[in-house]
Amino acid sequence: MRRAMDELTFIKWIKDHLECGGTTEAVTQGIGDDMAVLTVGRQTVLLGSDMLVEGVHFDLGRTTPEQVGHKALGVCLSDCAAMAAKPVAAVVSFAKAKTHSVTVVEGIYRGLAQTAKTFDCPVVGGDSCGGSKDLVIDVAVLAVPDGITPVLRGGARVGDTLYVTGPLGGSILGRHVAFTPCISQARYLASHLPVHAMIDISDGLSTDLCHMCRASGCGAEIERDLLSGVISPAAVERSKSTAREPLEHALHDGEDFELLLAVGMTPEHLPTLPQDVVLLPVGQVTDGNTVCIIDAAGVRVELPEKGYRHF
Amino acid sequence: MRRAMDELTFIKWIKDHLECGGTTEAVTQGIGDDMAVLTVGRQTVLLGSDMLVEGVHFDLGRTTPEQVGHKALGVCLSDCAAMAAKPVAAVVSFAKAKTHSVTVVEGIYRGLAQTAKTFDCPVVGGDSCGGSKDLVIDVAVLAVPDGITPVLRGGARVGDTLYVTGPLGGSILGRHVAFTPCISQARYLASHLPVHAMIDISDGLSTDLCHMCRASGCGAEIERDLLSGVISPAAVERSKSTAREPLEHALHDGEDFELLLAVGMTPEHLPTLPQDVVLLPVGQVTDGNTVCIIDAAGVRVELPEKGYRHF
Repeated sequence: MRRAMDELTFIKWIKDHLECGGTTEAVTQGIGDDMAVLTVGRQTVLLGSDMLVEGVHFDLGRTTPEQVGHKALGVCLSDCAAMAAKPVAAVVSFAKAKTHSVTVVEGIYRGLAQTAKTFDCPVVGGDSCGGSKDLVIDVAVLAVPDGITPVLRGGARVGDTLYVTGPLGGSILGRHVAFTPCISQARYLASHLPVHAMIDISDGLSTDLCHMCRASGCGAEIERDLLSGVISPAAVERSKSTAREPLEHALHDGEDFELLLAVGMTPEHLPTLPQDVVLLPVGQVTDGNTVCIIDAAGVRVELPEKGYRHF
Repeated sequence: MRRAMDELTFIKWIKDHLECGGTTEAVTQGIGDDMAVLTVGRQTVLLGSDMLVEGVHFDLGRTTPEQVGHKALGVCLSDCAAMAAKPVAAVVSFAKAKTHSVTVVEGIYRGLAQTAKTFDCPVVGGDSCGGSKDLVIDVAVLAVPDGITPVLRGGARVGDTLYVTGPLGGSILGRHVAFTPCISQARYLASHLPVHAMIDISDGLSTDLCHMCRASGCGAEIERDLLSGVISPAAVERSKSTAREPLEHALHDGEDFELLLAVGMTPEHLPTLPQDVVLLPVGQVTDGNTVCIIDAAGVRVELPEKGYRHF
């Protein structure tokens, strides 16, 4: 009999099993955050990886190979942003079928190279193999704090204001392969504001907020009015073909790769931010363990996790 | 028109393009060795990754899931061995099809956990995704020199003796999923002998020797008589069903994950080695750029690279 496996159960299972498989004093933060935090000698480093699979994370019929290369490295760089870390270098593993042309492969590597250059994160090694059915790219990134303590997802405190760094929703229309990882913004915010927790919005605001609350042992409420202010034009566009509200897209769509932050500072106390650093309030951290959406009349509805599920 | 792509051309192309894509002062050794060598702060670290694809690197009909998990981490640990580095931690990315059962996935992670524990290399993060056609596992490992300067493949010198750390060939009969990464042996050898170059035998002795010679700007000759001394029982067994000589299997089969070393010390000058550290001479490093096999009568034949090709 085949058992069903939901992702959270699976990650919990993996975490339990692998931690039984040994952890060492080098590990400050293991499985369960955007990147692991490790101590080697006197140096703190961060390590993370992300895998893209053709047909799941990209479609070569609708996306250029260069965009696929950009996305492959970009999702890892977005993890660096979520930790407020500075990337050092990446390794890239790559599997392709015989049917994937050299042109496609070259395009992907050109995209990787361009993004590597933009973010000062050289690709320094990896692996390659033919004979798979799908085109699969895995990127692992090494990063360093470089003067800024890594921000975990588990540090949110009751009363913190929840912010996102930009409008959300409808990334499938193009942004999911053309986003800019928010590294400089994250590092500015983490070094200038009391940022208690941070996560990148890869699985959707609803799901990633749940991840943050679960890790932090708290709840949250999103204000519907505030959420209306973070609906992207793409979410509006997307809603025309899905018959779902734009707000639903802002709430549940994944792969905007903006950041969600829990900050110990309300909007009216925020200092003036540089032009490229945006903070849009969406709600606050609460006690308890439920994540709700609350409307102007004060009616609360528990928020379903409708974001991307890996399994 | 689709162009053919051989692996070396491809890696050269990648290296050229990605290096154009930016390299930084952090990179001591980039693309082209078993692992990259990086400097972060005052700490040297090594980073590498290896991807296993179902149907290419393992077959779930002939291999237990636990062995697949072992192999996925083991090939990366073998890269650590090739650099004489000490592993610190690993991240694992994983893609599966709906048809892969929970039992298979759990078995793979159990294998990973066991090997992680054995080699003190905890799995600290990664990624997971459903919806691929193949089962794909990518492991990236972070390592440190821990007192031993990383040994590159490009340091072989004319006159060095070539050694392997164990018998070769026929790994497909079982060893390719049950090998032990030679980390402790590599670290012993690198700290006690003048080891000028080292590489793990993943693609086959002939191919990996060519990699070493190309990186070192030298040639090599393998002595047929010496090679006879490194034929594994599995190579003999395998030859019964392939109608090829056992020696051919020792020379060209991949995935034994023994080490090939260029050492500035001839066999008669070697000190007594610990019981678990084996060095079997197979030939010597020469000038020029050809890799030959030489028989007892002094007849030389240029060695074809018949080992594993990734594309």
